Amino acid sequence: MTDTTDEPRPGMSRRRLLGWTGAGAALAGVGAVAGYSAADTDPPPDPSGGVVPFRDVHQAGIITPAQDRLHFVALDLTTVDRAAIVSLLRRWTTAAERMTAGAEAAPGGAVNRNPEAPPSDTGEALGLPASALTITFGIGGSLLDKLGIPRPPELADLPPFQLDTLDPALSGGDLCLQACANDPQVAVHAVRNLVRTGFGTTSVRWSQLGFGRTSSTSAAQQTHRNLFGFKDGTNNLKAEDTALLEEQVWVPPAQGPAWLTGGTYLVARRIRMHVETWDRTSLAEQESLTGRTKGEGAPIGQAREFDIPNLGPGSPIAEDAHIRLASAQNNGGARILRRGYNFVDGSDGLGHLNAGLFFLAFMQDPRRQFVPMQSQLARNDKMMEYIRHTGSAVFAVPPGLREGAYWGQSLLEG
Amino acid sequence: MTDTTDEPRPGMSRRRLLGWTGAGAALAGVGAVAGYSAADTDPPPDPSGGVVPFRDVHQAGIITPAQDRLHFVALDLTTVDRAAIVSLLRRWTTAAERMTAGAEAAPGGAVNRNPEAPPSDTGEALGLPASALTITFGIGGSLLDKLGIPRPPELADLPPFQLDTLDPALSGGDLCLQACANDPQVAVHAVRNLVRTGFGTTSVRWSQLGFGRTSSTSAAQQTHRNLFGFKDGTNNLKAEDTALLEEQVWVPPAQGPAWLTGGTYLVARRIRMHVETWDRTSLAEQESLTGRTKGEGAPIGQAREFDIPNLGPGSPIAEDAHIRLASAQNNGGARILRRGYNFVDGSDGLGHLNAGLFFLAFMQDPRRQFVPMQSQLARNDKMMEYIRHTGSAVFAVPPGLREGAYWGQSLLEG
Repeated sequence: MTDTTDEPRPGMSRRRLLGWTGAGAALAGVGAVAGYSAADTDPPPDPSGGVVPFRDVHQAGIITPAQDRLHFVALDLTTVDRAAIVSLLRRWTTAAERMTAGAEAAPGGAVNRNPEAPPSDTGEALGLPASALTITFGIGGSLLDKLGIPRPPELADLPPFQLDTLDPALSGGDLCLQACANDPQVAVHAVRNLVRTGFGTTSVRWSQLGFGRTSSTSAAQQTHRNLFGFKDGTNNLKAEDTALLEEQVWVPPAQGPAWLTGGTYLVARRIRMHVETWDRTSLAEQESLTGRTKGEGAPIGQAREFDIPNLGPGSPIAEDAHIRLASAQNNGGARILRRGYNFVDGSDGLGHLNAGLFFLAFMQDPRRQFVPMQSQLARNDKMMEYIRHTGSAVFAVPPGLREGAYWGQSLLEG
Repeated sequence: MTDTTDEPRPGMSRRRLLGWTGAGAALAGVGAVAGYSAADTDPPPDPSGGVVPFRDVHQAGIITPAQDRLHFVALDLTTVDRAAIVSLLRRWTTAAERMTAGAEAAPGGAVNRNPEAPPSDTGEALGLPASALTITFGIGGSLLDKLGIPRPPELADLPPFQLDTLDPALSGGDLCLQACANDPQVAVHAVRNLVRTGFGTTSVRWSQLGFGRTSSTSAAQQTHRNLFGFKDGTNNLKAEDTALLEEQVWVPPAQGPAWLTGGTYLVARRIRMHVETWDRTSLAEQESLTGRTKGEGAPIGQAREFDIPNLGPGSPIAEDAHIRLASAQNNGGARILRRGYNFVDGSDGLGHLNAGLFFLAFMQDPRRQFVPMQSQLARNDKMMEYIRHTGSAVFAVPPGLREGAYWGQSLLEG
């Protein structure tokens, strides 16, 4: 399946698309999985191996059923030349659209016709299916600063939180790319080819791999477990919560700026988990700190995972339980759409695994949602004895692209 | 599926095995995949989601069809007390056997009956299938030194090779555990629970995650691609090559020592790949350096991946092509069983991804096989312009365990 051809044919598998040339061509209908828009009331299809449409009302990779693997990269501009940046964003969009459809990053791909030129695709995903790849694009406040564009107030840097131990080398970034797929090789291939395309205009600031998605983003998905061994994200906002998404996730026209209407904000936090200390804690204490049982994941005092927690008078859930502190009731009704992943980044040089949770959450306004919630948790959550936030970033995530548009166009030409 | 029971029943799914108690009980027949021994001539079954038998003539995880994900950890002893070490090895063996069967690390598991005690399993694999988990145990020369046991000469430290840039923090180790599975959460869970069991006796020296296995170990598997975009390990030794395995991989009785008969040696090398430089190289140069075409993976001058390379007079394969330098013909007939994985460990602080290949290879005698091969490659392989070896270790890998035996028993009680 390594032949190249420039003529796409309906139903052809991804690697027959190697030579496919249409940057702006409609991709709906390519691949096995049909698209869905935010207005659909049916649950989105499980895209385990298929193609997730690249162009839609919102960017893919937010309410798309969370894939199992992540490669996230934050990049910095190495130039402020607008033409160079626009050129890169155009090329990125073309390459990303191709790769999410299962094609190589550029026509001709890894097996280009001119052997004297470097291959236009790095090749490690040749022969692999699209694997539900999504690539989600975000813009950091520092990019706007560099280009002299006013930041929306929602894109303010996060305030320092109690117990933060942030590493600047794992924080911030002018741009981010979140690649999710059901095969890590496909996610890594996507990031690597976009990083490569960016040479001369951007450089990698930090990068994070993740596995074992925590936080389902669709009611059709089972809840996975974090590295504390607990189901994580049971009460997450989900793709099916259309009204709540409008209220909590998508930027409404009245909020502005115009280039972000229908977009959202992404808060990324690298959370190191001191699993060794946690593992010496009794089951009773673990469950009390969490507010849920370990096996079933039921709220304390209830029987099943999706039972509603009793947070009212006489509640059996501790005052400082994580689910109470993080609850909408305790945060003025604020909710977020979480999309985190577990990670193990080798060892820490002190005899321990360098393990944790890479927290990703989408929301309408970090100042109203993440900041008060995290302030509460940092002050009162006993779970903070077992974790440290070591990386942090906020990005504005523009809305989905109409046919022919490129990432950031509404910002740079708006 | 979080109930616990102490009574295993035939055909029950992994998490019904939570309370299963028999450390020495026969596991053959538990799970979906039947065992195979090295003497079988049929290809081994594909264990994509099932259970790989823990006890066999050889350890699992060597000729087992290579699973897609890896978590490898090297540990150092923090004591030389023999009783403590034996106790740990007994507990490790019991826990490893349980986990490879799809059970938790210890009876009672994450949902133990005494809530005032820490859970005996960390819980993050609750509800996940066995995922073909294998855990392979190795012994470093430094462990033998510490215990005053003579090293077999094959376990000598590797000599320095040209262009080595080894990081001591990513090299060596008294012990190693190689966990392979088709779900990274299952591999990470296994390593984490064994590391936890080792507290007080061992500490983590280094740890490496991998994905996208390169090097098939069974003729039934397709060849995967490394991060240079090339198929890797086409000509690997495979489970079906029974006679070659006896000649190149398994330690024969005449070689000794007795505790290693039927075992093997493992060479681990962390190879950073400078993918950015590679990606600026022409397709022709990439193919010439490799000695194979990028798309099909055919030897230069041939049409298909598994065609025999022409390395004789008039060969179209360059004198310094990687496949020529690494070939058995060029290395006195020496071959190795490779079982490597791709990795991306975040970024390097210089604007690049920290990516590469975690090379794992099993062989009868590193001095006869890996050392001359790597000496050739380090001196003559132009691919060395694009890679650096940053970590290195050698381990003796004892044979498989009979019923009731524990890892290292033949060494410590032999």
